[in-house]
Amino acid sequence: MVVRVTVWGENVHDRQHPVVARIYPRGMHGCIAEGLNADPEIRARCATLDMPEHGLAASVLDETDVLTWWGHKAHDQVDERIVDRVQQRVLEGMGLIVLHSGHHARIFRRLMGHNCNLVWREAGEKERVWVCNPGHAIAQGLPPWFDIPHEEMYGEPFGIPNPDEVVFLSWFAGGEAFRSGVTFRRGAGRIFYFRPGHETYPTYHQAEVQRVLRNAAKWARPEGRISWPCPNRPAEQAPERLAVVPGAPS
Amino acid sequence: MVVRVTVWGENVHDRQHPVVARIYPRGMHGCIAEGLNADPEIRARCATLDMPEHGLAASVLDETDVLTWWGHKAHDQVDERIVDRVQQRVLEGMGLIVLHSGHHARIFRRLMGHNCNLVWREAGEKERVWVCNPGHAIAQGLPPWFDIPHEEMYGEPFGIPNPDEVVFLSWFAGGEAFRSGVTFRRGAGRIFYFRPGHETYPTYHQAEVQRVLRNAAKWARPEGRISWPCPNRPAEQAPERLAVVPGAPS
Amino acid sequence: MVVRVTVWGENVHDRQHPVVARIYPRGMHGCIAEGLNADPEIRARCATLDMPEHGLAASVLDETDVLTWWGHKAHDQVDERIVDRVQQRVLEGMGLIVLHSGHHARIFRRLMGHNCNLVWREAGEKERVWVCNPGHAIAQGLPPWFDIPHEEMYGEPFGIPNPDEVVFLSWFAGGEAFRSGVTFRRGAGRIFYFRPGHETYPTYHQAEVQRVLRNAAKWARPEGRISWPCPNRPAEQAPERLAVVPGAPS
Amino acid sequence: MVVRVTVWGENVHDRQHPVVARIYPRGMHGCIAEGLNADPEIRARCATLDMPEHGLAASVLDETDVLTWWGHKAHDQVDERIVDRVQQRVLEGMGLIVLHSGHHARIFRRLMGHNCNLVWREAGEKERVWVCNPGHAIAQGLPPWFDIPHEEMYGEPFGIPNPDEVVFLSWFAGGEAFRSGVTFRRGAGRIFYFRPGHETYPTYHQAEVQRVLRNAAKWARPEGRISWPCPNRPAEQAPERLAVVPGAPS
Repeated sequence: MVVRVTVWGENVHDRQHPVVARIYPRGMHGCIAEGLNADPEIRARCATLDMPEHGLAASVLDETDVLTWWGHKAHDQVDERIVDRVQQRVLEGMGLIVLHSGHHARIFRRLMGHNCNLVWREAGEKERVWVCNPGHAIAQGLPPWFDIPHEEMYGEPFGIPNPDEVVFLSWFAGGEAFRSGVTFRRGAGRIFYFRPGHETYPTYHQAEVQRVLRNAAKWARPEGRISWPCPNRPAEQAPERLAVVPGAPS
Repeated sequence: MVVRVTVWGENVHDRQHPVVARIYPRGMHGCIAEGLNADPEIRARCATLDMPEHGLAASVLDETDVLTWWGHKAHDQVDERIVDRVQQRVLEGMGLIVLHSGHHARIFRRLMGHNCNLVWREAGEKERVWVCNPGHAIAQGLPPWFDIPHEEMYGEPFGIPNPDEVVFLSWFAGGEAFRSGVTFRRGAGRIFYFRPGHETYPTYHQAEVQRVLRNAAKWARPEGRISWPCPNRPAEQAPERLAVVPGAPS
Repeated sequence: MVVRVTVWGENVHDRQHPVVARIYPRGMHGCIAEGLNADPEIRARCATLDMPEHGLAASVLDETDVLTWWGHKAHDQVDERIVDRVQQRVLEGMGLIVLHSGHHARIFRRLMGHNCNLVWREAGEKERVWVCNPGHAIAQGLPPWFDIPHEEMYGEPFGIPNPDEVVFLSWFAGGEAFRSGVTFRRGAGRIFYFRPGHETYPTYHQAEVQRVLRNAAKWARPEGRISWPCPNRPAEQAPERLAVVPGAPS
Repeated sequence: MVVRVTVWGENVHDRQHPVVARIYPRGMHGCIAEGLNADPEIRARCATLDMPEHGLAASVLDETDVLTWWGHKAHDQVDERIVDRVQQRVLEGMGLIVLHSGHHARIFRRLMGHNCNLVWREAGEKERVWVCNPGHAIAQGLPPWFDIPHEEMYGEPFGIPNPDEVVFLSWFAGGEAFRSGVTFRRGAGRIFYFRPGHETYPTYHQAEVQRVLRNAAKWARPEGRISWPCPNRPAEQAPERLAVVPGAPS
């Protein structure tokens, strides 16, 4: 069954920064969606910050199995009500793939309950991505490692809860190492954070990176859809017969 | 070394509800603090919602190793700036013990990134608390199980991230089971959620419950204090010599 | 794609104990396989202790996506070489579903690294199974809870590593609670332990139990197949150029 | 309270290999114990393979809070009965620190339930150890990173269950990254694996490494001592009154 992906892009650098616009003429989101759509089992479309409701109307999320998120410059322009909505959908089962500087996106911080801080450097250095578990769905079809010729560096400590699994580690030419592919489950939803993707380098054009995103989209598809009510189950509906004792019995 | 605990109480039921006032004449927080202070290695004091800054001024938190949190009726009166502050302190190392209806406190939802919903029933039924790991610090000195004669029921599904460890399970006379003692680590901080403690029953007077809280206070003491900066480490400070490549090299 | 399941049965009680033989005339494994085969996406066949290589020849495992394991009386008759083989296959990606008294099977203890001990009672009491995460693949199609009229009781503490996820909790009429559905990942393999299934009760005939097993079989299918070599990568094959420094340089 | 550590050394290279003997004239274990004993809260003594019961008689373990393990060449000479005994003690609460090539020690493989394989290279290259969580007890007093001038390389994939926490990552000059400090809990026991420590380099003389070991020894001290029985709790001892239903009721 086809995985329906909504690729969310902040779309600010893409329009304002000539270098980014040259690398990603259809926007970073456009490139990411194209890479996903190369797989016949995935159908990706785009949504951006400047659209009404940031392109994430309830009707859009109704038809979204997995949401990918790239943002950087305008995290604080994302409406908290949309963040509420996306969080709710993740807990209900929607997959979420957070990319690169999305570590500071409101939705990621919200779901992590952490600051998601890290150390960083923009020097265009080489990043080498290592596979920690070649048996993980997200690592299928990858070599033991692959290099990204030029990237921003992210270093430890990375302020996240301990992940369910560390799928990738990154090695940087400048000397750092980083947990660059990590998974989390929240409610019924699967979350994958993937480090690479600085806007001024052509990372999302790279075949291995596109492969990771396709794998992740399939891995993150919902196992089931649930709501999270908080119901009262009164004594007469309890599975066992109960004699009610009013409060403060002593 | 003494563990400095701040016992936070909402202090609303305690003043407004005669049944609660009779059971807890010095407030629920007063009873909890008294139970903690029975251990010479713990020094507990109280803070309540109605105090300036809810009693959680920065200077108070500076001298707090572990914070306990009981709230129910007035979760939405807790100032988001205080929630920010407490979250920050937990990530920096302060322990947090969340009690009973505190599952819906802003600080708990914030740190969990989840709704923390559950099923509930007020019928004064019997709760039996089982120890899942008798070797855990929080379970020291407890029997294999203990009964609380009258309690509110909380049932699954409990909307939390998968905990680091399930220390206690509860069995209810009405037929439910619940993960009633669960631990989480966030940043440098240790978090323990403990289910029992409905305001209209004398739960915090019970010896086993007091023992759990004393154990938890010691378990949650900071391992270390850290801040979580998000620094730039420029190329000239990289551990390895780096030739900087400007953006968009291709 | 069809999930190929091998249902392993000890097949001792089934032949020697008239009560068991009456409930499970084709063996417990026969009943389990039948329940699985009710799903067109699953193709289950059986293997038993008394077969050559316990029915688990390498050629059989080559065509097994998921193995289910029920044993009780004859754990110590399972050849360690077969245990080695099954462990290796799980690490390489084969799913494993361990049932009831299989908690003490050599293969489960091997993979857990723990004793897997628990408290038990045979009194034919009622067991109620609660769903902790209705969004989990293994819980799809189940009600919030279901009752098994007569079962053996298993109680905490349960000697296992902290599971990746607690999918089910059990409530017992005799007063205990138990983590009765737990998942683990080891290497590329997914492991699910499911508590119910005492031989003298018709548990595996029950619709909800069969549903759990079908869900689990699909959940446990391999994400990928890998071997786990332990290779040397000499300096001339290192990703970065290296000048070799012989040992003890100082 | 003093932490009583037993430092276990294989003591084969140390006696047979002149380079190792020169770096560690009192054995690697001697150097490790000395580094631990620099802390007045730790009291370390040594045990080696060539002693009766490998120096790990029950009476020794009775007085051991934390066991450290370095082995390489003679893993298969460690008596399985001693491995049984050590495993049992860890589950009961004894801490275990496994060092470097101890990843293939029988006791580590036993407790992990995994092969613990990895990629390796002996080229005397630089290893840089990064702290992932500066708030973790094991990282106290360390800088953000420290270098070990010459070490063997270990690379991913590392065949272990997903750890409770990744405390350290290593960066290698040859281009690899590795989860080099990982924690696990098994039963009441805490386990820490620490990667550095190849026999032909003076790693255990280095101040930061000694600091890690002292921190780890204190972190791993038992929270409590428990046995893991597997008792029957008959109906007449059940917490709730039970009418026994004999097997096969239908």
